[in-house]
Amino acid sequence: MAQTRMHGYFRSSSSRDVNPDLEAERKTASFSVERLTTILDGGAENTKTRRAVDAIIHSDPVFNRENQYFQTQNERYEAAVKRAVHVQEKIHQMGWSENGPEIQYFNRALAGELAFPIHLVFKNSILALGTDEQIAKWIPLADQYRIIGTYAQTELGHGTFLRGLETTATFHVSTQEFTLNTPKISAMKWWPGGLGRTASHAVIFAQLYVKEKCYGIHPFLVQIRSLRDHSPAPGVIVGDIGPKMSFEHIDNGYLMLQNINIPRENMLSRYSQVLPDGTYVKQGSDKMNYFTMIMTRVDILSREVLPNLLRACTIAIRYSVVRRQSELKPGDPEAKILDYQTQQQKLLPPLATGYAIHFLSVYLDEFCSKGHTAIKQGNFDLLPELHALTSGLKAIITEDCAAGAEVCRRACGGHGYSALSGLPFLYTKLAASCTYEGENTVLLLQTARFLVKCFGAVLSGQPVPASVVYLSAVDSGKCQAWTKMDFLKPDIYAEAYRHRATRLLRNAASKLQALVQSGAEEYEAWNRCTVQLVQAAKAHCQYIIVKNFIDAVEQLRNEAEIQKIMKHLCDLFALHGIFSNTGDFLHDGYISGDQMDMATASYLHLLAVIRNDAVPLVDAFDFSDESLNSALGSYDGHVYQRLYEWAQKSPTNQQVNRAYEKYLKPLFQNALSKL
Amino acid sequence: MAQTRMHGYFRSSSSRDVNPDLEAERKTASFSVERLTTILDGGAENTKTRRAVDAIIHSDPVFNRENQYFQTQNERYEAAVKRAVHVQEKIHQMGWSENGPEIQYFNRALAGELAFPIHLVFKNSILALGTDEQIAKWIPLADQYRIIGTYAQTELGHGTFLRGLETTATFHVSTQEFTLNTPKISAMKWWPGGLGRTASHAVIFAQLYVKEKCYGIHPFLVQIRSLRDHSPAPGVIVGDIGPKMSFEHIDNGYLMLQNINIPRENMLSRYSQVLPDGTYVKQGSDKMNYFTMIMTRVDILSREVLPNLLRACTIAIRYSVVRRQSELKPGDPEAKILDYQTQQQKLLPPLATGYAIHFLSVYLDEFCSKGHTAIKQGNFDLLPELHALTSGLKAIITEDCAAGAEVCRRACGGHGYSALSGLPFLYTKLAASCTYEGENTVLLLQTARFLVKCFGAVLSGQPVPASVVYLSAVDSGKCQAWTKMDFLKPDIYAEAYRHRATRLLRNAASKLQALVQSGAEEYEAWNRCTVQLVQAAKAHCQYIIVKNFIDAVEQLRNEAEIQKIMKHLCDLFALHGIFSNTGDFLHDGYISGDQMDMATASYLHLLAVIRNDAVPLVDAFDFSDESLNSALGSYDGHVYQRLYEWAQKSPTNQQVNRAYEKYLKPLFQNALSKL
Repeated sequence: MAQTRMHGYFRSSSSRDVNPDLEAERKTASFSVERLTTILDGGAENTKTRRAVDAIIHSDPVFNRENQYFQTQNERYEAAVKRAVHVQEKIHQMGWSENGPEIQYFNRALAGELAFPIHLVFKNSILALGTDEQIAKWIPLADQYRIIGTYAQTELGHGTFLRGLETTATFHVSTQEFTLNTPKISAMKWWPGGLGRTASHAVIFAQLYVKEKCYGIHPFLVQIRSLRDHSPAPGVIVGDIGPKMSFEHIDNGYLMLQNINIPRENMLSRYSQVLPDGTYVKQGSDKMNYFTMIMTRVDILSREVLPNLLRACTIAIRYSVVRRQSELKPGDPEAKILDYQTQQQKLLPPLATGYAIHFLSVYLDEFCSKGHTAIKQGNFDLLPELHALTSGLKAIITEDCAAGAEVCRRACGGHGYSALSGLPFLYTKLAASCTYEGENTVLLLQTARFLVKCFGAVLSGQPVPASVVYLSAVDSGKCQAWTKMDFLKPDIYAEAYRHRATRLLRNAASKLQALVQSGAEEYEAWNRCTVQLVQAAKAHCQYIIVKNFIDAVEQLRNEAEIQKIMKHLCDLFALHGIFSNTGDFLHDGYISGDQMDMATASYLHLLAVIRNDAVPLVDAFDFSDESLNSALGSYDGHVYQRLYEWAQKSPTNQQVNRAYEKYLKPLFQNALSKL
Repeated sequence: MAQTRMHGYFRSSSSRDVNPDLEAERKTASFSVERLTTILDGGAENTKTRRAVDAIIHSDPVFNRENQYFQTQNERYEAAVKRAVHVQEKIHQMGWSENGPEIQYFNRALAGELAFPIHLVFKNSILALGTDEQIAKWIPLADQYRIIGTYAQTELGHGTFLRGLETTATFHVSTQEFTLNTPKISAMKWWPGGLGRTASHAVIFAQLYVKEKCYGIHPFLVQIRSLRDHSPAPGVIVGDIGPKMSFEHIDNGYLMLQNINIPRENMLSRYSQVLPDGTYVKQGSDKMNYFTMIMTRVDILSREVLPNLLRACTIAIRYSVVRRQSELKPGDPEAKILDYQTQQQKLLPPLATGYAIHFLSVYLDEFCSKGHTAIKQGNFDLLPELHALTSGLKAIITEDCAAGAEVCRRACGGHGYSALSGLPFLYTKLAASCTYEGENTVLLLQTARFLVKCFGAVLSGQPVPASVVYLSAVDSGKCQAWTKMDFLKPDIYAEAYRHRATRLLRNAASKLQALVQSGAEEYEAWNRCTVQLVQAAKAHCQYIIVKNFIDAVEQLRNEAEIQKIMKHLCDLFALHGIFSNTGDFLHDGYISGDQMDMATASYLHLLAVIRNDAVPLVDAFDFSDESLNSALGSYDGHVYQRLYEWAQKSPTNQQVNRAYEKYLKPLFQNALSKL
């Protein structure tokens, strides 16, 4: 091929040294990258396990993702099914436990490119909502993939507002069956993952009717496809909802039901059941189920959302020390783009955010674990706080991770737009997380409702949960910083965040109260305050994150070098938040204009300081090249060679160019006589 | 098919009435939508022409885009080539002129989905940079698509910094030829549209060497593929760079040259040429060429960038009055989501931004036209101002349009993530505009450099260009608003923007000066101020946009109803900018905390006011359903039916499910005995 004839002067991307521009960055690290990696992993043992899983995955051709960016939706789906089935075989082969650490590391190594992840949600919903008999019947089948299930809740017309779901399940005493129906188009199930082309079964949420009385939403286990030939069950219309912004490997689906009869035993009945005579019985508390949902949310943040931001930072920062562009100092060689202040200002705040969220997720795991212990002892007191906290934090974190990844993508210029950079993939996946598992604005307003209630409690002297005790603190009303160095003191900036969160909540709550007192109906008053309530909820969450980052740095006291760089990142995170929301702090004069100039100076100075450790800080995340799957982000930094080698593999370079044959050839041949 | 059996209760999406929830919004319009449309079009005659072009396109099956979201990269490319060739035939058939209004309307109707748009840039570069003989030789061939060209400037290693390009063109007196080479991998041309699989020719930018002396970057016309069989010319390696975040219909390509000889006549020589003896001659001023580049930029903003924001607003706003979710007032039917304040706060500012940019682009067109007249008379005085203005505005506008489209997408919840909504497509295209035609941060710093220079001139009492005369005005130092109604006075908010722009520039310039005076080298001082210089440049541009919007509303004095709603939008645009950047206005006390509360109250109140005209305001953009290509945004508002109908057409519902056959069937059949 002509393609290979001239390559004498290009070395291949395998067997080559690290790009010297990247190498140089690693030589000057102020801390041990390996040590930081083990801290991030939660111990050397975990690092070892994670790397062992990485090695297993990357040595197995079934898991190879090198053609991912060239695949059609159908090919992505097929490869993901193949991998998902193969993972199950591996787990069995290696003798790993279902809930062992290896499973999570699998997901990390494969960047989530596994089919039917909702099968796990299906299983968990049976475990949470099913009776012991139901669990005994269905879970072994699901465990062995003898059935694949989906979780069919969302409908075309309803996502957020579950009470509005329109699918019906009517119980008939005469047959001892439920009849499920999709009464109108907006009631069609829409979006469930794995529903489109895979699932044999579904947990379907429907309005329960017994003797013409509606008992609200309940879960039903329904077979939707034949296990013999995969054809839809009679009365079932099921299909794929088509292309999306990303997640091509998942077959999100639609489902319509017409007079589907299922036995009485298929209503998941841990918390409520219908007796043979049609009597509806509620039993126990479904708070445990509620808690499981919160844990799932926390899990998604740390295992799916955060890693994609960390990948984006790794790619963009490595690229930014390899890419040289323009003259910084006249006469010098072109500068690494990370040496430009504007590039630092783009990339280092998302990096600091990545670390902030890492430490936050460690905290949330501990909080959940504490909650779990209490709940097992029948104490559900932590639940409202945990719910409010995770709602708002989910919103903030997904928004910050998505925004950060997009900043990273754009900071790589044109090459960040190439799918081969891996960055478009990361952004479009993260963008989904702002909507799934609870739409962010709705979640922030749930947090706000909790905060307003707590604020009322504080005013009336009642006790409040630990995370909002700060609302009752008094402050001086003025920031106590006198020099720019003062803004590097955690007490100073934590206090500023606290003051701001309290003020925004107080203002929103006062406005709410004033509107009600002036005669507005409560729902109307609430609606007219929602923009400001969202601000207050965000400020609360940001305070929590800053405070937690400070505490985490504090705990690193036996790791002097690492503590030092983490302190810089914590400072940067906090000051970036102030710099990006100056008005919130200036509004009531808590921070003066002069103080804000000091904070800004400290912030900009930190950029230059952290820049020197930027590469070691992303190296510490320890993503393998295969997991990053980026032509720009590989450990060796040979970005141009890799872009070129990967591009050559694109199907557009292999396929016959029919467009030329059909449309252009006749035109071009007219020119032959003229040239 | 089972698929159609049950559809008795779903009407098809053709031949149906408008959704009553959408219909109701149109009945209460405060102004004539048709009148506003003609104003936006620049007169009734244009509206008529535009609609005629729409009709021609939408009645021709070649232009049909209904399968676009299901197509592979290759299919998108083929369809786009087919359309591009067909457009040319249509133009010929209808007897339209090359630069007539119809051509632009074609592009609008097809949402830019035409292949090789860079062929036009190729042509324009020959027209701008070629001699009369070169134009006479090449332009007729290009006009008739007997050759297709690309504009090969960007390389793997260089985009922004043109001086750094590494491709070489060496003149040999002995052969009277230039020899072009790609000396290293980073010198490979990368990104040019149409290069990957289409172009026969390219204008290639290379470092000119004559007798071992380098004369810098020059343009050369090179044939890269055979006109007989499309094979790469000897010594040429060319291909497609592979998948991208969007623009699948464009074959962006790579190109390596090894000892490609072209005749001396193929250097485009309007401004500089190499004589047969190797003498290098510069002639005339290339400022005209420079001006052409500015005009191209302005054109892209109004014809490619802005329409995609307007499409996103149309889709999201129509959907938001059809989608009902949750209870606003207890006991009432579920509310239209546009009735929630948070949804208004998401969608109405981008709508106001769309109008602001529309009026700005009218102004820029006029400014360019004025510039053109002056330049034709040999007066290039306006050029630096025009360059600075369009650089910064390009950055602001592309950023705002991309951000606005993404807000619209997310505001549609899960359905906004479906490709069938059309919204992912709009965002991913707009995201590219933040990088192409000048990376935004680089452009803002160019504007900043101009502003710093002008600020210096103001201080020393020298005259400055019209758009920066405001820098010399004096203000009271305090905002003169005493009630929230005062913030609806254009003088009040224009003055606030002016004050802010001046202050940010003054601060950045002072810091720059202080650093230099304290001994920092100038390049280093500049770098350390760039974050703040970017802020100053943005504030300048935002002032220009607000000021221009105010002027445009002023000029609508004979259109009372339209002027009224445009005034609301102008107020909203300005107050949203204040609300989103409160710190900039609070910093020096120009606006006090109390005043900011008033501004916020006015801002939130405006949301509720404009909400009532939201649908008429997007209807006025008059996008046909075919041009929007959105299941959520059609004029009739039957979103759920359309989503379902379109999803059924997805290839994932037509293709054999090999993943099931290969991987799942064996597993499922194990379950048969158990169930």
